[in-house]
Amino acid sequence: MSAPTVAQYTLRRLSELGLDRIFGVPGDYAFSIDDAAELVPGLSWVACSNELNAAYAADGYARIRGAAMLSTTYGVGELSAINGVMGSKAHRLPVFHLVGKPSERIQRLGLITHHNLGDTVYDRFQPLSAAAACVSAVLTPDNCVDELERVIREALRQSMPAYLVISELNGGQPVLGTPISGTPLGAVKRQQSVPQELEAAVRTILSRLEAATNPVALLTHLVSRYGCRDQALAFIGKTNLPTAITPNDKGTMDEGMAQYVGLNAGNLSSSEAVRNLVNNADLVLDIGGIVTTELNTGFWTGHYDASKTVSINDNWVRAGEKVFVNVAIDDVLHALHERTTTRCADHGMKLEPSALTGHPEDPSSSASFYPRLQRPLRSDDTVVIETGTCMTHLNKMLLPAGVSAEGQGLWGSIGWATPACLGVAMAKTSGRTWMVTGDGSHQLTLNELAVMGRYGINPRIFVLNNGLFGIEDVISERGHDYDDLAPVNYHLLPHAFGCKNWLSARVSTVAELDQVLEQIDAHDGAAYIEVMIPNAESQPMADAIIDSGYKLSTPQPG
Amino acid sequence: MSAPTVAQYTLRRLSELGLDRIFGVPGDYAFSIDDAAELVPGLSWVACSNELNAAYAADGYARIRGAAMLSTTYGVGELSAINGVMGSKAHRLPVFHLVGKPSERIQRLGLITHHNLGDTVYDRFQPLSAAAACVSAVLTPDNCVDELERVIREALRQSMPAYLVISELNGGQPVLGTPISGTPLGAVKRQQSVPQELEAAVRTILSRLEAATNPVALLTHLVSRYGCRDQALAFIGKTNLPTAITPNDKGTMDEGMAQYVGLNAGNLSSSEAVRNLVNNADLVLDIGGIVTTELNTGFWTGHYDASKTVSINDNWVRAGEKVFVNVAIDDVLHALHERTTTRCADHGMKLEPSALTGHPEDPSSSASFYPRLQRPLRSDDTVVIETGTCMTHLNKMLLPAGVSAEGQGLWGSIGWATPACLGVAMAKTSGRTWMVTGDGSHQLTLNELAVMGRYGINPRIFVLNNGLFGIEDVISERGHDYDDLAPVNYHLLPHAFGCKNWLSARVSTVAELDQVLEQIDAHDGAAYIEVMIPNAESQPMADAIIDSGYKLSTPQPG
Repeated sequence: MSAPTVAQYTLRRLSELGLDRIFGVPGDYAFSIDDAAELVPGLSWVACSNELNAAYAADGYARIRGAAMLSTTYGVGELSAINGVMGSKAHRLPVFHLVGKPSERIQRLGLITHHNLGDTVYDRFQPLSAAAACVSAVLTPDNCVDELERVIREALRQSMPAYLVISELNGGQPVLGTPISGTPLGAVKRQQSVPQELEAAVRTILSRLEAATNPVALLTHLVSRYGCRDQALAFIGKTNLPTAITPNDKGTMDEGMAQYVGLNAGNLSSSEAVRNLVNNADLVLDIGGIVTTELNTGFWTGHYDASKTVSINDNWVRAGEKVFVNVAIDDVLHALHERTTTRCADHGMKLEPSALTGHPEDPSSSASFYPRLQRPLRSDDTVVIETGTCMTHLNKMLLPAGVSAEGQGLWGSIGWATPACLGVAMAKTSGRTWMVTGDGSHQLTLNELAVMGRYGINPRIFVLNNGLFGIEDVISERGHDYDDLAPVNYHLLPHAFGCKNWLSARVSTVAELDQVLEQIDAHDGAAYIEVMIPNAESQPMADAIIDSGYKLSTPQPG
Repeated sequence: MSAPTVAQYTLRRLSELGLDRIFGVPGDYAFSIDDAAELVPGLSWVACSNELNAAYAADGYARIRGAAMLSTTYGVGELSAINGVMGSKAHRLPVFHLVGKPSERIQRLGLITHHNLGDTVYDRFQPLSAAAACVSAVLTPDNCVDELERVIREALRQSMPAYLVISELNGGQPVLGTPISGTPLGAVKRQQSVPQELEAAVRTILSRLEAATNPVALLTHLVSRYGCRDQALAFIGKTNLPTAITPNDKGTMDEGMAQYVGLNAGNLSSSEAVRNLVNNADLVLDIGGIVTTELNTGFWTGHYDASKTVSINDNWVRAGEKVFVNVAIDDVLHALHERTTTRCADHGMKLEPSALTGHPEDPSSSASFYPRLQRPLRSDDTVVIETGTCMTHLNKMLLPAGVSAEGQGLWGSIGWATPACLGVAMAKTSGRTWMVTGDGSHQLTLNELAVMGRYGINPRIFVLNNGLFGIEDVISERGHDYDDLAPVNYHLLPHAFGCKNWLSARVSTVAELDQVLEQIDAHDGAAYIEVMIPNAESQPMADAIIDSGYKLSTPQPG
């Protein structure tokens, strides 16, 4: 049996992590990768409508499967994807970005090629793409086996993207050395711990926990990124720690668990009770690492007192002024779960889904939409949350038991959700995928609908159409023309994009909204609903943000 | 009268170059720029559907006006635009890329913000964006006047993009020092010449020209980029030099001029006569600088003998092994025009538009489409040419007198044409804008149709739908699934995108094509025509390219 080519070996090795799709746009210089995708057993090519969308789709897929594969071509392709890959870096997702390159024959002959600046600099774009990764390599027949092991190990260790360059020529040549068979990502030990540091960290956390009289846990989405969400939930269950989340972390907690108390984000918390619980706790156990951006802290109105906080990060723990390093989060959680004797009293807070509001003849609005969306969600479903005003609403929803969610609160690149929804839906092996976006975000990446239709995936999509960039309008103090959007007839897009058997409608009233939600439940296929929203409804949010001084174009707030 | 803010001053100074639009996506951190765009007299904000599209639109606008303005936000926005700006760098277009940044208050307090990686590194993205520019600056109230002059001068001198960072706080503060009033770009002397070098270069060129018995000129698109197309055409007219172009340069020559002989590109030249004329010339006068990529030389089958070639580049001249530096191309052309005594005989070649082919009931095809497109074009019209198989066809068309064209042959980023068409149409003050794209390219950026509709521009768009990436299919040796595309109903898109009064149709036969071309002529508004093309028709091109050995995944051709 002949040796696999460099491209085939690379794709096979990565695929064995448990990845069955590779997202991308084909192109000259990358054909050896594209060709290989057709030959690796169990791997399918997903032809996205452009490279940024492909990067977002890979990001979505990685959130479910733990890693993803993305392929673009030299220069034009990789640079188009860079924002999406940088978002995966921010959100700690190991996306393997495979990029083609002009062959060594072109390079050795010093030929001028397209997709470049008209000179013979062939590695100009590598530092740019590599900046969105934590590790990179240029693969050759000779180094491929070794380098790939290094790159995989480091991408998983750091939980960040990797950048892999394969020239068109080398991609088609046989790999040298002894190929390595990969194991599924779930079986990979991603980080190791120095035993003494681990023991010291665990003891410190346990003693802080035992000494606390009213501790609270904060569970962050990074535990999912580091592959230890189940461990974290088990620990919360065993200790019965009341557990809050921050906006960035929506969907990480199983909100059906008795320990869940709601969203903590300063003066934008889901309730005063949650805010008080966190503020008054004598121990805040941060599981995963809190990110204190403005959008995650109610515009920096939520503070975490370092002396009361213990943070368990990917490979380090901070407890007050103590810092323990080289301690893998899964080892920490394992030890805590084994050894804890803490058992908190029930928190006693009652969480209820928001009540349905609005009369049938009322115009549809955020107030009537979100409580209604809460109800049809079922265990195993995933909600993909776009950045913007819809995120602020969705984050306050109570998710039913077993429902997860994915958002991009830190990087916050509008347009992410639509292609990410494609990736999430393709990665999930059970449950439905829902997506909520505003029209401002959706317009950036809506061409991905054609790809969803082509591959027959069945998302349930809601486009909230208020005719403007809602969140920009809120932050920029309202009324600027630049926040206005083109008058798109969104509900006509699925048919125009060739999506077959999609339930598509525009709803303008509460009655129409109720009706279409019933239809979706009966439809068992893709749905795409344009929900008309009054553009003035965000005025209170605008006022709140202006009051907070967030618009920092003036030297000082207030 | 109070001083303008840094953002206002910057936009006003740039606008005075003769720019009346700023393309972009608004966003937090960039609001001082967005707000300023509403206040600068004669400047309008163009809200593109995403940042890459905005960059492409700015690129198109710069091709007509000589420069353009683009604004995006920090991180997510600027990184999304980087591929488009790098294309402007390759094609020598001074696009001023203005980017917002977190305020100094955020920076000084060390706050964590969104659109970043969760840390306090605020200048992480600057080197990435700056790599797509030739000059950059971080503007403050104190340095704004000085720095802006430096940046403008250098961007125009090098004819490449500039990267300008304005923090949200500084953007709103008053500029210090004495504001400078700008002059229109046409009145700016972009480069100066060292007199001795200039004289030596001009004498050398004139003597080579006088000594030549069968000289030929090659006019490249870079003369347009350097603002001296009219000078070059006047020189060609005076000397009566037979003039060819290469594929990248389509539309730079006025093809109605008696001197035009056709397209030179090795074995993909428009005729054997043109190829022979260039190959047998004892002097090839390259005006602008030829770029010898594979796509511009018939896959490197066209060669230029250095001993017979004289190249006039932006600021240097090469004649055989002589190189003259610090000589501005406009100075060289001015002197040549003044002093030349060369008057060539008429070349005697007859150029005719391609004959119309196909019977009414025949399926529409490239063979029947392009000759028909040639006919309705009128003086002052511009044709925007997408990369791909359509480019190879369009390049061989004979453009009527006064018709120009724009393509992106060097950078070759598919999807460029649709937003570039928006920019071209907005920049033009007379004549119509036509655009031809394949479905493979169009899918990347078709969301820009909504923007065209919103702003009421009237492009004439043809989407050639063959259901696959035609050029990729050709190069990748046909038949790969990854070259197949989603089955989009393109002709339904304008209505779905809210475009009012667009003539939109799908044509499948020659008769339907003839009919719709008549309708377009009568319509006097935007048109969007989906032309069905058999996907097998590119087989001969595939064969030719495979024969040429271009697919370089094997070590050697043949």
